This record gives sequence, C-alpha cells and structure tokens, in this order.
Amino acid sequence: MFEAKLEKADLWRKVIEAMKDLVQEATLDCTDNGISLQAMDNAHVSLVCLLLRSDGFLEYRCDRNVSLGLNIARYINYHYSNFSSTAKILKCAGSTDSITIRAADRADTVSFVFESENNEKVSEFSIKLMDLDVDHLGIPDSVNYKSIIKLPAAEFRRICSDLAQIGDSVVISVSKNDVCFNASGDLGSGNIRLTQTANADKPEDAVVVDMTEPVSMTYSLQYLNYFTKATPLSGQVSLSLSDNVPAEIQYTIPDLGYMRFYLAPKIEDDDN
Amino acid sequence: MFEAKLEKADLWRKVIEAMKDLVQEATLDCTDNGISLQAMDNAHVSLVCLLLRSDGFLEYRCDRNVSLGLNIARYINYHYSNFSSTAKILKCAGSTDSITIRAADRADTVSFVFESENNEKVSEFSIKLMDLDVDHLGIPDSVNYKSIIKLPAAEFRRICSDLAQIGDSVVISVSKNDVCFNASGDLGSGNIRLTQTANADKPEDAVVVDMTEPVSMTYSLQYLNYFTKATPLSGQVSLSLSDNVPAEIQYTIPDLGYMRFYLAPKIEDDDN
Amino acid sequence: MFEAKLEKADLWRKVIEAMKDLVQEATLDCTDNGISLQAMDNAHVSLVCLLLRSDGFLEYRCDRNVSLGLNIARYINYHYSNFSSTAKILKCAGSTDSITIRAADRADTVSFVFESENNEKVSEFSIKLMDLDVDHLGIPDSVNYKSIIKLPAAEFRRICSDLAQIGDSVVISVSKNDVCFNASGDLGSGNIRLTQTANADKPEDAVVVDMTEPVSMTYSLQYLNYFTKATPLSGQVSLSLSDNVPAEIQYTIPDLGYMRFYLAPKIEDDDN
Repeated sequence: MFEAKLEKADLWRKVIEAMKDLVQEATLDCTDNGISLQAMDNAHVSLVCLLLRSDGFLEYRCDRNVSLGLNIARYINYHYSNFSSTAKILKCAGSTDSITIRAADRADTVSFVFESENNEKVSEFSIKLMDLDVDHLGIPDSVNYKSIIKLPAAEFRRICSDLAQIGDSVVISVSKNDVCFNASGDLGSGNIRLTQTANADKPEDAVVVDMTEPVSMTYSLQYLNYFTKATPLSGQVSLSLSDNVPAEIQYTIPDLGYMRFYLAPKIEDDDN
Repeated sequence: MFEAKLEKADLWRKVIEAMKDLVQEATLDCTDNGISLQAMDNAHVSLVCLLLRSDGFLEYRCDRNVSLGLNIARYINYHYSNFSSTAKILKCAGSTDSITIRAADRADTVSFVFESENNEKVSEFSIKLMDLDVDHLGIPDSVNYKSIIKLPAAEFRRICSDLAQIGDSVVISVSKNDVCFNASGDLGSGNIRLTQTANADKPEDAVVVDMTEPVSMTYSLQYLNYFTKATPLSGQVSLSLSDNVPAEIQYTIPDLGYMRFYLAPKIEDDDN
Repeated sequence: MFEAKLEKADLWRKVIEAMKDLVQEATLDCTDNGISLQAMDNAHVSLVCLLLRSDGFLEYRCDRNVSLGLNIARYINYHYSNFSSTAKILKCAGSTDSITIRAADRADTVSFVFESENNEKVSEFSIKLMDLDVDHLGIPDSVNYKSIIKLPAAEFRRICSDLAQIGDSVVISVSKNDVCFNASGDLGSGNIRLTQTANADKPEDAVVVDMTEPVSMTYSLQYLNYFTKATPLSGQVSLSLSDNVPAEIQYTIPDLGYMRFYLAPKIEDDDN
C-alpha cells in the first residue's frame, strides 16, 4: 500500500500544472524517502525533476517502492474522447481540501482523495496507471555553477514573457552586482537589467547575485516560458548558470522539496 | 396594458441567462397572478418552468391576460444579422437599475425600461413579439418524490462541472444521511459524497437529505450543467428524485417564485 | 537629442491602446512645446489627434524638432513574424514604472526606458523608426459647436457598446436638459436618455448639457466604439456636435493635454 496525504490539494495541482505543457506522461517514483519524478519534455530538449520528501507530508506510508505511471495532461486530438488526465482530476479539488494519493500494491489504478475541512464532502477520483518506460536520466548534481541568481519568481516570469514579445531567445549575462536579460528581433531589441537588492522588505522580493565568474549564455525563451508555469509553487526562483552546461532553474517548495528544470544553452550560429 | 416593475433588473437578466442555452424562444404568460413560462429545450429532452408571483413585484398591472412570445437568445447562424434578443437587451441594464416590462394590449412589441437609481438615466428597449405555438405542457405537480436533497447551488454546479470531466452521465444515489454523485469514463472514475450537514453557519450552506426510500438514478451531465446556469438565482438548489420519473431541480427565487427544471433519468443499457 | 520622461509608463500605454485599433502607423511630432500626433484611421473615415504639452513632463528636452514614425500595432498577418510594435513594447512596462522616450538626432531607432521605483529594474526597449509620409491634416479648431455634452467616459462607453447590440448607428439628439441616444435594427430599438445632473457627488460623475441650438445627428457606432478605447485616459468625455460638421470627441489628459477624435455624421438615406 502506498498512501501520502497533504493538507493542501492545491500543492499537487500547482505541481502538475507546472509540468503539464512540457510532459504528457511521467512516472512518480515513490519510496520511503518521498516522491520523485524525472522526465524529459516531449521534444527531448529540457528535463524536469521533482522531489517531495516524505517528512513533509501529513501522513506517508510506503510499504514497498512503487512507480506510478501517470498521464499528466491530455494530448490535443487524442483518440480518447473522455480522457481522465491527472491535470483534469486535480482541478476537481476544492481550494482548501486535503489530498491523499493512494495506490494498492500491484494495482492498476491510483486514487486521489479530496476531503473538505469539515469532512462533509469527500471526493475520490481514480485513474488507470500507464505502463511507461522508466529510463532514469543522469542528472549531474555536482556542477559548480559559476553564477547563481535568486530573484522573485513572478519577476522572472514577467521578464521571460515580455522578452518573448521581442525575440526567440534571451541572453542572460551575469556580472558582479547585476544580471541582464537581452532579446532582439527583426525590428527591435529589449534589455532588462536587475540590480542586486540593497535591502528588500521581504526576503522573497530580493534579487541576489552570487557570481564566481561572469557568465553570458543564450537560452530559448519558449522553454523558459514553459518553466515559469511553476511560479505559483514558490516566491523565489534560482537560476544556476555556467558556460556550456545546462542551466538549472529551481523552484523550492517550502517544507517539501523542489521542482527543477534543466535547459542547455543555445549555440550561437556563426553565420548570423 | 400589462406592466410589471422590479427593483432589480439584474433578476430578469439572471432568469434569462439561466435558460438561454436551453431555450431559444419562449412565451411569458402574464395574468393577474403573475408571470409564468413553460418550455421544452430545443432537443425536447428537458422542461423549464418559471413562476414569478405578481405580489413580489414593486408594481404590477395586468388588465387582461397576455402572452408575450420572446426570442430568448439569438440562434447561431441565424438569418438576421442584427437580431435583438431578450438576452442581449437585458445585458444593457445597469447593475442597480430598476426594470419595467410593458406591453400595450394587442401590441406587437414589448418594452423593457431600465431606470437608474437617481432617474437620470432612462433606457427603453423594444423588441418585436414572436407568434409562438402555445402548447401547455402537462407538468405533474403531485409527484411524491422518494428523496429530496437540498444543497448549496454553487456546490451542485461544481459537482456537475467536475464530473463532466470524467464522463457523460452521473449516478445520483441517496441514502439516509448522504448523497453520492458518481461518474465514470474510459480511463477513470469519480465519486463525490456529501454528508448531511450537522450544523451549518448559514442555512444556505447546509446539505439536507430528506429520504423516504433510497434512490439511485442516472442523469445526463450535459443537461444538469445547463440547469446550473440558474445558480446565480438562488443560494440553494433542491433535487427531488424518484425512480423512473423525471427529477425536479428547483431554484427558489426569494419573494417571487421559482425556476424549475425537469429531466428524465437515463435508462441503463443492458449491453454495457 | 530628444528625451521626455513621465512618472507613469501607464499613461503612454493607455494612449497607444486608445488608438491602436484605429491607426497602424503614426508620427509623433516632437517640438519644444510638446508631443503631438495627427492621423486618419486606416479606412480614412475618422481623425485622431493627440497633444501632450512639454510642461506636463517630469523631464523634457528637445534640442531640435524631430518626427518619430512609429508602428503602433502589428498588422494581422503582417509579413514580419517577430514584429516589435509600440503597443507590444508598452505592455512590458511595470504598472508603477516611469517611462522615458529617447531618440538621438537623426537616429533610426527610438528607445523606451522603464525604470522601477527603487531603480533596481531598468528595461530599455528600442524599435526601428518608420519613414512615414507626413501630411498634416487641417483640423478646423474654430468651430462653434451648437451643443457640447460632458458625461462620464465610462457611461459613454457603456451606451455605445449597448446600442451596438441593436443597430449600426446612433442618433444623438440634444435638447435643453437632456441628451438621447437612439438605435434601431431589424427587430427592435433602443433609446437611452441622460438628464443633466442636478448635483453630482463627484465632478466626474456629472452630465452637463451646454446647448445653443438643438442638434440631432447620426453617427457610426463602430467608430464611436473605437474612440471609447480612450476611456481609461479620462474620467469625463466631451461630445461637441453641430449639424453636418464632424463631431469632436475629446478625452482630457490631466496636466498634459488631450486625445481627440473627429467623426463626420452619417447622411441619412432618403430611400429608408
């Protein structure tokens, strides 16, 4: 039996919403330590990693390791007309409901149980598990990034969405006290500079630049804009950058873990 | 002369919005007792009934019985390009305007007059009446339903809309202290259980189950989702159910009357 | 060098939004006195005029007169895929950012610089200038209009949008103490009467009718609905009307100037 209860169904909804444009199907790996997920996006360009530690759950029971293959979001023009995706089901949770994920050993379904605060409404949704190939992706967790920038997650989302109006990619350049985001297109250019915050009212509002060496790399704005769907999970986002290795974009989930995205920099064409 | 004034134009707007996806044309029957309407939906599956009692109006005058054939909402691809439907016209009322419906005897138009609180804005919209067949539909008002459930109207709307994500129909099962809503589809199922409320803070928030005999019948979610457009009319909805007779879904309109919908249960296919 | 700074980037955003459905390209004429713009709409039916006086700016420097040819909004199906229009760029300003418009002498680009309150975020967007024909349009500013009506801008927007549900044009009729807006279509009619306000709580809420002679003229609702996109600029709008000369619809921009629209009345067909 696997069973994991959280006080807020909302959190799972945000986790699934954060990845549903990137990943159609993914496997939750459930162990004593917690729940993890690793998946490449549909185009095999970026990588998404989720970790929710067991000690952050209200109740957690994992009799034996189990892999839950989930349909995250329905394909457009999929051949099933009434397709029950995880994203759809999580939208059925009330904003203050608790959530329990439950799977019997060797079961072919997983259940999501939502309970209202007074327990007078209990909803149980079950979906069939999918048999997905589990190829664990080697994520290099020992990179010493040359620059790490922390900034408000909503600010990062705004910058990526604004610059996508101008061009397809953004050059992120880090220097001692500031970080610049630069995009250009056929008829114009945009350059946004954030200075390290002197003293922010709230830690969440701070911009912190932690630079060992200056970095200036180019990334796809389309993918960054996919990643910023995770903004509701966290007040801050951290961008860890080095030359020619994938950037790590991390949203910390308080008391539970994190959601991370990895994206390789674009190689500049010589013939530009 | 027929003339009926209400303090809030908003109420008529909600009444028309509640039926406009079901019924394209309908007749308001105006008598000394009040205004009533009975209509089948366009597909002749369900029935909508409206009653607004004359004593609930601010002013009410009905010299002789009159039937007002109204276009409720414009057909899509209708052959008139500038079609003035009742739904369109009621959207022109300010949120705090009063409303007077006025028709001269044997007139071929009806007027909707909106007046602002200070009377400094007066709008009069007139539309041509339609000559509709008046076949009064025999509504059995003496059914002794086996189960009557009262629940917050917004909760019922949420349940019907959530379960429509899973399947096409819902099984509503009533037992002594609770009511279950169950839907299933190709790859999943959903089950929502509401328990009778112990003590609700507001009467509107209560779930009340009044069961003589248990009932378990299947209904079309598409139609229930049409009916829940009436949610803004009332804090509570009541579902009156019996085996093999149409369910009655009622929204009480405070001080005026009600809007009711009737829907026959689905017959289960044996070859499922 | 030309440079003009305003405390609120929002104001420029509202100005551009107000004209972007009417005008695709336009020239900002910058002189010591301020910034002005005159343009006909794409169909050459109406005229839009903007004036922002230099003394209303936080900082203003204009070494020599300069004309800035701007793409206001992207054409639909335009042949550029990543087209940086002024409307797009102004959407990248934060709601409390300041804005500086800057152009070097004989430059082929113009820059919009947005600065956050604490100066920790600075965004600079540049777009290529366009080489537009500058034919200054003779606007008769000495008309003695027979009737001038002032009313809340939001009320005028509401009236034009409501009546567009009924017909294509509106008859505006001014008499001593009130103004009537009348539209009719295939199957109905609408008539909205505003009475001069006795005593409004706020000057912005007042309806003021200043009539020398009664006027009753017909105007295109489509164009009036374009003009009311300027509503966010001003609490009040003034309509200046005379027989057979273009109406002037003015939105005053506090401390800076105005945005004006001119629209000729419709000639009634005799064969109606």
